[in-house]
Amino acid sequence: MNNYALLSDFYEFTMANGYFRTGMKDKVLYFDLFYRTNPDTGGFAIACGLAPVIEQLLNLQFNDDDIDFLRSKAVFSEDFLSYLKTMRFSGDLWAVPEGTVVFPNEPILTVRAKAIEAQLIETMMLLIVNHQSLIATKANRIVRAASGRTVLEFGARRAHGFDASVVGARSAYIAGVPATSNTLVDKLYGIPSSGTMAHSWVQIFDDEYQAFDTYCSLYPNSVSLLVDTYNVLKSGVPNAIKALKNNNISSGSIRLDSGDIAYLSVRARNMLDEAGLPDIKIVASSSLDESIIRDIIAQGGQVDVFGVGERLITAKSDPVFGGVYKLVAAEDDHGNIIPKIKISENIAKITTPHFKQIYRLYDNESSKAEADLLCIHDEKIDFCGSVEIFDPDFPWKRKILNNITARELLVPILKEGELVYDIPSLKETRNYCEREVESIWDEVKRFENPHDYYVDLSQTLWDVKQNLLSEERNRD
Amino acid sequence: MNNYALLSDFYEFTMANGYFRTGMKDKVLYFDLFYRTNPDTGGFAIACGLAPVIEQLLNLQFNDDDIDFLRSKAVFSEDFLSYLKTMRFSGDLWAVPEGTVVFPNEPILTVRAKAIEAQLIETMMLLIVNHQSLIATKANRIVRAASGRTVLEFGARRAHGFDASVVGARSAYIAGVPATSNTLVDKLYGIPSSGTMAHSWVQIFDDEYQAFDTYCSLYPNSVSLLVDTYNVLKSGVPNAIKALKNNNISSGSIRLDSGDIAYLSVRARNMLDEAGLPDIKIVASSSLDESIIRDIIAQGGQVDVFGVGERLITAKSDPVFGGVYKLVAAEDDHGNIIPKIKISENIAKITTPHFKQIYRLYDNESSKAEADLLCIHDEKIDFCGSVEIFDPDFPWKRKILNNITARELLVPILKEGELVYDIPSLKETRNYCEREVESIWDEVKRFENPHDYYVDLSQTLWDVKQNLLSEERNRD
Repeated sequence: MNNYALLSDFYEFTMANGYFRTGMKDKVLYFDLFYRTNPDTGGFAIACGLAPVIEQLLNLQFNDDDIDFLRSKAVFSEDFLSYLKTMRFSGDLWAVPEGTVVFPNEPILTVRAKAIEAQLIETMMLLIVNHQSLIATKANRIVRAASGRTVLEFGARRAHGFDASVVGARSAYIAGVPATSNTLVDKLYGIPSSGTMAHSWVQIFDDEYQAFDTYCSLYPNSVSLLVDTYNVLKSGVPNAIKALKNNNISSGSIRLDSGDIAYLSVRARNMLDEAGLPDIKIVASSSLDESIIRDIIAQGGQVDVFGVGERLITAKSDPVFGGVYKLVAAEDDHGNIIPKIKISENIAKITTPHFKQIYRLYDNESSKAEADLLCIHDEKIDFCGSVEIFDPDFPWKRKILNNITARELLVPILKEGELVYDIPSLKETRNYCEREVESIWDEVKRFENPHDYYVDLSQTLWDVKQNLLSEERNRD
Repeated sequence: MNNYALLSDFYEFTMANGYFRTGMKDKVLYFDLFYRTNPDTGGFAIACGLAPVIEQLLNLQFNDDDIDFLRSKAVFSEDFLSYLKTMRFSGDLWAVPEGTVVFPNEPILTVRAKAIEAQLIETMMLLIVNHQSLIATKANRIVRAASGRTVLEFGARRAHGFDASVVGARSAYIAGVPATSNTLVDKLYGIPSSGTMAHSWVQIFDDEYQAFDTYCSLYPNSVSLLVDTYNVLKSGVPNAIKALKNNNISSGSIRLDSGDIAYLSVRARNMLDEAGLPDIKIVASSSLDESIIRDIIAQGGQVDVFGVGERLITAKSDPVFGGVYKLVAAEDDHGNIIPKIKISENIAKITTPHFKQIYRLYDNESSKAEADLLCIHDEKIDFCGSVEIFDPDFPWKRKILNNITARELLVPILKEGELVYDIPSLKETRNYCEREVESIWDEVKRFENPHDYYVDLSQTLWDVKQNLLSEERNRD
């Protein structure tokens, strides 16, 4: 299954057919993909999924089978089906690079395309960006909790399907997890895979020592002996020490997969050190997440490597990244951009209209990001000297920033369907993501009650939004 | 990407290579796939994923690229790599049919295979069964909460990857969700897809009435007008009524996607009824799950159809189904089955040894399931007359069942790698699942504090387990 053109909500097709039949098929629309709240009540998210989105857009195509299937639904006109058959994505795409730190209510992607094309890519783009940003954001929380200790991705068996396990490991890698247990991920992306033994290896032998000794003789350069099949301190660690010594192995690790990790790791560390094996590391795995890892470290646990499975690959604590894709503007017959707004019963669901650019404002002294400013795409703003920003919900709350550097976050990705962007390597994306997280104040990175990062609107954009809100109020 | 042979934890390969190099490659092992606790503290789960597991096992094969990749890791012997190249799954598989109601600590699948084969299929089988049983169990909770009202699957944009959206909709269908928004699912599985409009449809027109009227004229037989783009009661519903009347449409629906669904649905129902449109249904969608649906119904909400998205497709309230795959027996050189146990620091992680069968015991009067009895696979038990069962953790707690019918839950699926099972159609599986849920007492189906269904061991199996536990204790 490589053809995901039909992986789309059915309403995208009924709307597209509607645009076609009412003469709106070439109407140019602008959509923003953005999210509304940070996962896990954190202070930010990490945008992920751009390279996979590009791949889908460049390959978007309905084959004969797809067209036949759509015909069988008996609601689409033949003209429309013929149109679909040769349709490719011919629009423009802007996006923040993968690995960018992002905040609620600012566009991660902006699409400018003919109505039909813009509509038909909605579901697929949301699925990719929501899932991958979710996992990247969660993985980065776990990496930060581990405070420099290694985190490994162990989640394949609990992932939500095949590609969740694969692209989940990719997203985690971008966010700072250097390796995975998933062999396919290594083959596809070159992210190192590793792993040594399950309990079944230990059980298949007549005794634990024999299982360890055999493993040590087979793989002297990459041992990680699983010591909790019977009893960690009475049998697992002593047998591991005996097998390591018998095979003259002084580097590698033991793994704890159950019990009180903080306690057991301290005891195991002592036993290893006393046996003259200070370079044998301790790996822990067992339903870990950022909260348990912080507890283990706070209690003095002697864990060198955290193998994190189900709670990373499913983002268990908050498994929905609520990205949405909303119409923000349309072009009239003369190519003028007409901003559009969506009102809602829920205030938080009101959109910010117009084709926009995001400026991230960095303090020149600390090099830290101070605020993001949403502007109309071609608005000229003078960032020299002092810049006054204000809270879009409480416009009397104002702040003056001095000595800043502004960076445009949205970069051109596709122009008339053609790639105009150099897709960075996975390693470059990972390094970029690390720098991105470094550029944010610690207060915003706090796990509990982080500081609200400012995402403000320029005066001009704020005025546009207020005017549209007034127009809508006047309709009532 | 159809070749998932490498979608496997790397340790499966290091262990397999170890079995190969130590003369254990043909050793016959038995593994059980089972889970330990019900999702959402519910009373049961629904087993799902068997047909996809069968597909993977029948097609398991390492191609040249896979072998080359493994060679590049520089830890596997050439003999082993040659062996892998021609290896197919040649073992036996027993499983409960898809859609079966299952309980903790009983096998959903049992594998009997050569060590290497049994090990290399672990990750993939767990991934499939964990994910799909998770979604089926969650979807069935939502269907039961809706008490006969229709539930639709709307989750594609928040699914964890492409195949999560597709097989998630399949799992939900088996568990009672009759339709989906996902077009690809319809093409692949024939599960009906439907959907009409997003907010963008309404916004692209100059006014809401025009958007509705146009839609009604295009699709008079399948309207579902989204009424919350501006103001549900002041504009959405009145414009919907006007457009429906203008197009002489008396069946179809309106959709509420934000705001207070209970309140708005009652008001909208009144407005539709007063306008002489009693057959226009009300669809609600907006972060729904079983708990919100029960609240809406309890408050008299007039919702006919619940469109459930992110909270179903991610099983948001409890997104990990903790299925595990554990060695339970091995054959000696004479083909005798030697039971194996895994002790653990966590009592709950101790396994039940041996190659087993599950008997579900039905009360002949009520036709309801009373208890499951785990026995040794070929144990002869007389279910005529009275049967005494006992709690395996508290063996003095005993109960006598009279007038029961026993049914074997594990059925043969593969024999020496060949399919010996008639895979039922998706519709048959769905009907079977409905009967399965009907066969369980309401007390077990309760959302809060359900009754613990009995999963007991036969005396013989209990003795085997106790003996193995004693042996392990004596090792200390």
